[in-house]
Amino acid sequence: MFGVAKKLHESTPFDTSTVISITVFISLICLCIIIGHLLEKNRWANESIASLLLGIVSGGVVLLIHKGQNSRILVFNEELFFIYLLPPIIFNAGFQVKKKQFFKNFSTILSFGVLGTLISFCLVSSGVLFLLKKIGLTQLSTNDYLALGAILSATDSVCTLQVLNQDDTPLLYSIVFGEGVVNDATSIVLFNAVQSLDLSNLSSMTALALLGTFLYLFVTSTLLGVFVGLLSAFIIKKLYIGRHSTDREIALMMLMAYLSYMIAELMDLSGILTVFFCGVVMSHYTWHNVSESSRITAKHAFATMSFISETFIFLYVGMDTLDIDKWKESSSSAGTYLAVSSAMLALVLIGRAAFIFPLASILNYMKRDSDKKIDLSTQFIVWWAGLMRGAVTVALSYNAFSGSGEVSNERSLMISCTIIVVLFSTLLFGTVTKPLIRAILGAPRHAVSYASDIPSLEYLDFPFLEIQDNQEANVNGGEGEGEGEGEPQRRRGFSLLMKYPTGAVHHIWRKFDDKFMRPVFGGRGFVPYEPASPTGAAETTHEH
Amino acid sequence: MFGVAKKLHESTPFDTSTVISITVFISLICLCIIIGHLLEKNRWANESIASLLLGIVSGGVVLLIHKGQNSRILVFNEELFFIYLLPPIIFNAGFQVKKKQFFKNFSTILSFGVLGTLISFCLVSSGVLFLLKKIGLTQLSTNDYLALGAILSATDSVCTLQVLNQDDTPLLYSIVFGEGVVNDATSIVLFNAVQSLDLSNLSSMTALALLGTFLYLFVTSTLLGVFVGLLSAFIIKKLYIGRHSTDREIALMMLMAYLSYMIAELMDLSGILTVFFCGVVMSHYTWHNVSESSRITAKHAFATMSFISETFIFLYVGMDTLDIDKWKESSSSAGTYLAVSSAMLALVLIGRAAFIFPLASILNYMKRDSDKKIDLSTQFIVWWAGLMRGAVTVALSYNAFSGSGEVSNERSLMISCTIIVVLFSTLLFGTVTKPLIRAILGAPRHAVSYASDIPSLEYLDFPFLEIQDNQEANVNGGEGEGEGEGEPQRRRGFSLLMKYPTGAVHHIWRKFDDKFMRPVFGGRGFVPYEPASPTGAAETTHEH
Repeated sequence: MFGVAKKLHESTPFDTSTVISITVFISLICLCIIIGHLLEKNRWANESIASLLLGIVSGGVVLLIHKGQNSRILVFNEELFFIYLLPPIIFNAGFQVKKKQFFKNFSTILSFGVLGTLISFCLVSSGVLFLLKKIGLTQLSTNDYLALGAILSATDSVCTLQVLNQDDTPLLYSIVFGEGVVNDATSIVLFNAVQSLDLSNLSSMTALALLGTFLYLFVTSTLLGVFVGLLSAFIIKKLYIGRHSTDREIALMMLMAYLSYMIAELMDLSGILTVFFCGVVMSHYTWHNVSESSRITAKHAFATMSFISETFIFLYVGMDTLDIDKWKESSSSAGTYLAVSSAMLALVLIGRAAFIFPLASILNYMKRDSDKKIDLSTQFIVWWAGLMRGAVTVALSYNAFSGSGEVSNERSLMISCTIIVVLFSTLLFGTVTKPLIRAILGAPRHAVSYASDIPSLEYLDFPFLEIQDNQEANVNGGEGEGEGEGEPQRRRGFSLLMKYPTGAVHHIWRKFDDKFMRPVFGGRGFVPYEPASPTGAAETTHEH
Repeated sequence: MFGVAKKLHESTPFDTSTVISITVFISLICLCIIIGHLLEKNRWANESIASLLLGIVSGGVVLLIHKGQNSRILVFNEELFFIYLLPPIIFNAGFQVKKKQFFKNFSTILSFGVLGTLISFCLVSSGVLFLLKKIGLTQLSTNDYLALGAILSATDSVCTLQVLNQDDTPLLYSIVFGEGVVNDATSIVLFNAVQSLDLSNLSSMTALALLGTFLYLFVTSTLLGVFVGLLSAFIIKKLYIGRHSTDREIALMMLMAYLSYMIAELMDLSGILTVFFCGVVMSHYTWHNVSESSRITAKHAFATMSFISETFIFLYVGMDTLDIDKWKESSSSAGTYLAVSSAMLALVLIGRAAFIFPLASILNYMKRDSDKKIDLSTQFIVWWAGLMRGAVTVALSYNAFSGSGEVSNERSLMISCTIIVVLFSTLLFGTVTKPLIRAILGAPRHAVSYASDIPSLEYLDFPFLEIQDNQEANVNGGEGEGEGEGEPQRRRGFSLLMKYPTGAVHHIWRKFDDKFMRPVFGGRGFVPYEPASPTGAAETTHEH
């Protein structure tokens, strides 16, 4: 009887090794979720760190099982990362981001994310060129050094999301996270540009062409994301009025968001930017056009997908660390490893400091409103929280230094050292950030907060939640997303606008949105039923 | 500027053809969703047929673009099908199945699914052996004929789900669908057994060994699914009391369900059976242990995933039809195609009739309760609705006839002909089933019903929904899942039990469940807050 069962094995229609690796990874992710839950109240550890450590431990176990020959279950695969894991994370970030905060700090985010990354790139590139030559490396080309500059300038927005809390420190969160998204896009664009750069034919036009390409990519990627988001809102509004089908609505939102990423990649644009803005537009329009249960499902399902992808990435990077083949390929001494990694880490620290503090000072100087200025302690935390390097760095490093067959000693040294930087920065900076924020800014306003269960999408439909925000909204000229406040407040807001011109853009946008956009694309207030239903409110209070 | 953008292309970290095929498929799925929505009120067409036709059309377009050379975007990949697409569909089926109906008809389902499939297998195998030799095919071995018998005996439970409605025809749905799940498992087990059978060494023990293996697989697979389901309930109950985190709960449910499938496959059991029973147990225990928003999310997120997989499969099969290479490989004449396909289709019809009517008569004879007997018109529909062949058939056919390199003329003829049978049966039987049911059984009880938005999980927490079911539950000895009915009814149920012994098993189960299972694994009533909250009720009514 068992003989037959054994025999069946050979004819199973797929590869056993795939099944084994999937089984191991899913078990580990389950374990990470449980450990992460148990660590929730811990002020030092968080889920990323737990996953990373668990990944290293399992890598070690696999290494022992294979008797030191091999620690791989899955080889680090850039396709897996860029096509399947990254899009849900960035989309969810756009979907859950507090739009008001994000757009209020848009100038800050943009200057840090674009200008800052460029500054960091220049500094780190010349830094590695200088330092690595001092250490004694000779085989790397100028292209490689430039690539390293782009690789080491990519902040990890995934880990940032876990360390900061959108509800406790909204300003900090929106700046650091917003910067992270723009920074990801900038680094990838820079990296691609640098990889294809012909340095033998360098002229003053090259820099200009790079800048032009960058602006072109930024604008078109954003527009594509906005377009797909609006299209989804339009389709769902037109088709589903009166007869909602939750499964179809969710499927359509999810697939169209993914489609935006894929189209962007096909058109050689930045998929990350596209899918991020697609998420922003979807949460502003599409999300309000769907049924009540679709809203709850969308919010949580997108967050869950992003959560699983994040956990998977950290596990993956952790497991990849002990990949014995990689370490064997490089015959460098421990001293060289230490020297190169320390040099990289120092450059990451300096490169980030070199733009955060100067740019923040310039921005502060330009702002009249003293409330909106970024004080030194916040600047310090922004600098600190963005030091973590993550999966984007690893993926780009593999792409730069492993691809083309001729993997030399020093090229594999670069991969190993970027992984050391990623591990070290995530473990050290990730651990210290939470207590650091608490020490500098004081205890969070909310006594207890379970990050993922707080309704991150603005529940501004509900008057009772509005009250908290009123003070803030009034200062900014009443342009906050609170139409429920009625006409008198709006008029008061208009007079306040004269005094606070920073709100003017937002005010014009709201008027335009109400008059032209929302009648076509829906959004809050344009759904066929009362959105301020007690259901949602009961939902919110019930969860805690 | 554009020159640089063009250049970037070469250094994108992944293959462009993958991106193109993903983009095309996602766009087509979006289109299918929209078309399916527009066809919802149409009594002939349904989503499966729309996807299938759209797949054929797009295959044709790709063929034209490639100037008749190639219609492939993705090659039909069994791994993709069995590892990624099938598990969510079957899990969701188990999760959403009406457990009361399913277990009430368990004997019928089991006899149709196991015994029936065996009968059909024997009949179809000997039928193809006889008919194909008559047509003039000579190259196929006895193993191939036996494989064909298993391949053609696999009903398509995916399409059945779309044609039948759980709320309109609960008895029919639970029989046809339940049989479909058991049948899938039986066919795959039979297929694997047949593939590994050594026919040169045939003895009377072979049949016995086969039966033994089958029973062993059936029992262990079911137990594994139940075990993983209970484990998930236990973990979530123990860990999350008091502080729920929706993302973690959903992630844990989803991953553990998938894990059960993977472990089953690793242990050479039937993953389909395992994940189905895991779904059943999760909806009975785990689902009740999570927070309110997790319940809504789980219900809809699982349905959405299943929905996307289904649409994808039909699109895929449709697109695969016009794969020109496959048709070129076989040099047979149109007459041979027609003859073989018709023979197969006839055998499918006969093979199914050969067990539905006799087995139904035997089952009717054994039942005392005339209410539970399956009348002839229902038998006819059960026969008819199970005639569709789908993706499992295609996947198994590829596995049997394309793998081992030596693809002969007749072997590729077999693949083409099974695809013709799948297309023909889905298009014809799928189209006619809905009107046929209406013609035979009369109009459905519910005037308008949007299949996917009706709360398929039993919302028996809510007393007002209970009323409808009361009559039925009382007949069966009050063993229905309605504790809300109070003590008097339960005692009445106990006296009724004497008269209706079929309910005895269920009654014992309920007592066991209440006394031993639910205190440990949770389930309805053991959650820390009032489950019959107005939120859920408001939710249900709001959706329509």
